[in-house]
Amino acid sequence: MLEVYTWEPNANSGKPLLMLKEKGVEFAYHYIDLGRREQHSRAYLELNPNGTVPTVIHDGRVLTESSPTLEYLDAALEGPALRPRDPYLLWRMRWWIRFLDRHFCPALAMFGGAGASRAMPVQDAETIERQVKDIPIPERRRVWRLIMAKQVPEAALEESSRRIGAGIRLFEQALAEHPYLAGSEFSLADIVAMITVYAMPVIRPEEVNDRKTPRYMDWFRRCHARPGTRAAFALGRGWVGGRVAEARKLLGV
Amino acid sequence: MLEVYTWEPNANSGKPLLMLKEKGVEFAYHYIDLGRREQHSRAYLELNPNGTVPTVIHDGRVLTESSPTLEYLDAALEGPALRPRDPYLLWRMRWWIRFLDRHFCPALAMFGGAGASRAMPVQDAETIERQVKDIPIPERRRVWRLIMAKQVPEAALEESSRRIGAGIRLFEQALAEHPYLAGSEFSLADIVAMITVYAMPVIRPEEVNDRKTPRYMDWFRRCHARPGTRAAFALGRGWVGGRVAEARKLLGV
Repeated sequence: MLEVYTWEPNANSGKPLLMLKEKGVEFAYHYIDLGRREQHSRAYLELNPNGTVPTVIHDGRVLTESSPTLEYLDAALEGPALRPRDPYLLWRMRWWIRFLDRHFCPALAMFGGAGASRAMPVQDAETIERQVKDIPIPERRRVWRLIMAKQVPEAALEESSRRIGAGIRLFEQALAEHPYLAGSEFSLADIVAMITVYAMPVIRPEEVNDRKTPRYMDWFRRCHARPGTRAAFALGRGWVGGRVAEARKLLGV
Repeated sequence: MLEVYTWEPNANSGKPLLMLKEKGVEFAYHYIDLGRREQHSRAYLELNPNGTVPTVIHDGRVLTESSPTLEYLDAALEGPALRPRDPYLLWRMRWWIRFLDRHFCPALAMFGGAGASRAMPVQDAETIERQVKDIPIPERRRVWRLIMAKQVPEAALEESSRRIGAGIRLFEQALAEHPYLAGSEFSLADIVAMITVYAMPVIRPEEVNDRKTPRYMDWFRRCHARPGTRAAFALGRGWVGGRVAEARKLLGV
């Protein structure tokens, strides 16, 4: 049995969930509650010493880093192929995954971090250090220290906002060329994008709407209507539900 | 004819050069002189509006972003396959490329930037703005502004140094499991790594040496001895030559 250790169907956590629902492959879903910081628990760190989600186990092999893992699963499992066969379209798929992983998702995560920061109680430095000490990756430790200390820099939010705006224009442009990000078929690029931006029409209504980004809106409608997408979001235990429902209502799907 | 627009056989610029020499495929090498900032010239920006190197043209298709481009070229061209066929080893190859692209290369580039910064004349803000205004990507513009203003932050250098140290330990660990990064065969992971770290034994002699990292040193010797590697470095017009020669001398190859 395929084992998936991850949080909600959201961003990196959600990539294997959405993909496996699209492929129609059964798996055991081990919920790792990021709210309770279970990804830094001793048991989880034994599985994945970096304390990142998701971790996938297939045939006794432990796979981490979600985008390379998706390519592995697409090659190793039954079900519809989620990668184009044409080398150029494959390049395009990987170009998009790279853009999303390096630019777009981190920019969105910056806003997620700022929101988490605002919601936090004021804590003294000692309490913060006690909480961050189990985080194995130093760069993640630093980010969490800033979030807990309510010190997410304004300049970082401005730059993230700019990147999101640039990304939205890029989506619209790409979807004017092809119905999906890497050609005429739904692919891993759409999976990585959709699980990350599914609520964008709700979050950025002035920039993402039928007048300014008709192709992007059409892509959202097609993706939100897919049975695989619906099944993946149905796995959520609270975090994604409200935003998915709002997005569907706004899109009329 | 395959067209490659790029700078020296070094880091991202060098990836297609090393790969094409390994595959034994002929190509036209259009040298883009980063020292003269030709990547921001009008002619080059028409080809690649982001002003990044390399840009590869194959069958009339313009390919950017070096790592996805390498996978495309491996699928589209003749010559020895540079990707393992086993899905798990492919995952491992992509895991390494991702790690190098996201963590290791940017950390090394930070030192490159600091070196460039030290070598620069003191310039006033207006002169700096005049120079950075053609850089199309805002995040690159910001980095260059810091470099030109001699303001590369000390904390960024410290963090980069830590990442390089952690990366060196990861290389040694991976090469204890397999002779190459993604198994028993030389692959794109080794190409991306080698073109980036080729001078590491010279740059970090206290950490990278036969006593502390015997497997990594052995990998350097095997990679530096490859005809493809030698042919790729021979394409350099000055920048890499000295460091390659020093590394070979130290390694005795």
